[in-house]
Amino acid sequence: MSTLSGTERTRIRRLPERAGTDRTALHEILDAGRICHLGVIVDGSPRVLPTGYGRDGDTLYLHGSTGATSLRTTSEICVTVTHLDGLVLARSLFHHSMNYRSAVVYGHPRVVVSPEEKLTGLRAIVENLTPGRWDVARRPTRKELAATTLLALSLAEASVKTRSGPPGDDEEDYALDVWAGELPVGETIGSPIPDSRLRPGVTYPTLP
Amino acid sequence: MSTLSGTERTRIRRLPERAGTDRTALHEILDAGRICHLGVIVDGSPRVLPTGYGRDGDTLYLHGSTGATSLRTTSEICVTVTHLDGLVLARSLFHHSMNYRSAVVYGHPRVVVSPEEKLTGLRAIVENLTPGRWDVARRPTRKELAATTLLALSLAEASVKTRSGPPGDDEEDYALDVWAGELPVGETIGSPIPDSRLRPGVTYPTLP
Repeated sequence: MSTLSGTERTRIRRLPERAGTDRTALHEILDAGRICHLGVIVDGSPRVLPTGYGRDGDTLYLHGSTGATSLRTTSEICVTVTHLDGLVLARSLFHHSMNYRSAVVYGHPRVVVSPEEKLTGLRAIVENLTPGRWDVARRPTRKELAATTLLALSLAEASVKTRSGPPGDDEEDYALDVWAGELPVGETIGSPIPDSRLRPGVTYPTLP
Repeated sequence: MSTLSGTERTRIRRLPERAGTDRTALHEILDAGRICHLGVIVDGSPRVLPTGYGRDGDTLYLHGSTGATSLRTTSEICVTVTHLDGLVLARSLFHHSMNYRSAVVYGHPRVVVSPEEKLTGLRAIVENLTPGRWDVARRPTRKELAATTLLALSLAEASVKTRSGPPGDDEEDYALDVWAGELPVGETIGSPIPDSRLRPGVTYPTLP
């Protein structure tokens, strides 16, 4: 287990007990997500766009299919992945909170140029969003690859932050007759909805 | 139904068929979310942090309990709320996509000063994250209110973008024996986990 970078902005100041310094935790949070929120500066203003991504080792790949304007830049970006794990109901409104895991990555991305790395990056993105599809669907043509903008971002500067467990009420509030605890929040994947033009006999594949 | 602002950056260029111009849709997307991703510029760099929020009319309130550093600024911010509704599995990898609803709001927030508006904003945030709790839990004290930083952001400049429905494959790919369709993605709330120090006889309240 290696520790994450400790630059000024990735050192968690406010609630240090919620800061993780473990690279494994960073990878786990990133791998458990499907979309990130990409922050860029456009004409001096911040812009935040939901974007597909995938990880290969310590490189994050970002897809250009959303936020195309933003991805034409190689100035500094911020990528944040958040999992809302639970609603934390305290006895006082003041201590209401949420359980979550979040990862924040900063850096100057580079535009992926080589077709080989584009395939690596696309595979990471596809398998992150829709696991198992790389080996099932038609692979990109040379023309499709050329039309795809991919950014690569190093995970060198990153931080993770998590909260879990019950509410933390003020001592005197534990005497109150107010229900307190946690409501777990999770993601569900529903039954597959077949496309209306599916070829006869083609069934939903068993995915890993 | 009123239309949203049409400034340069909130006019969707790339895929105009996914752009909504309906203020009702904006409200619905915001109201269906629990956390937003707040984009700010800190020392010239973009920063994106998950943050609690709530809506009151055409004002968005943001909580200062996460990203405290960021919330000390009243320079321009960007607030994005995204719902991942489905994974879109196409016959080609190139047309894999996701169904989603997202709202992006730009503006210069103001720090909420008056205790009355702080209560309004806090109520909006608490009821957005944990509906029904405002009337159940202990209300904020004067001291707690003073310790709470709230930002108010007008919804004057905002855009919504959505995708729904089946994949859009290239015509020739419809002949492929590849399963295609949609996997719906949803949120679940699990069974309440009572706090270990709950007073005897206090049961989980029936919420609206």
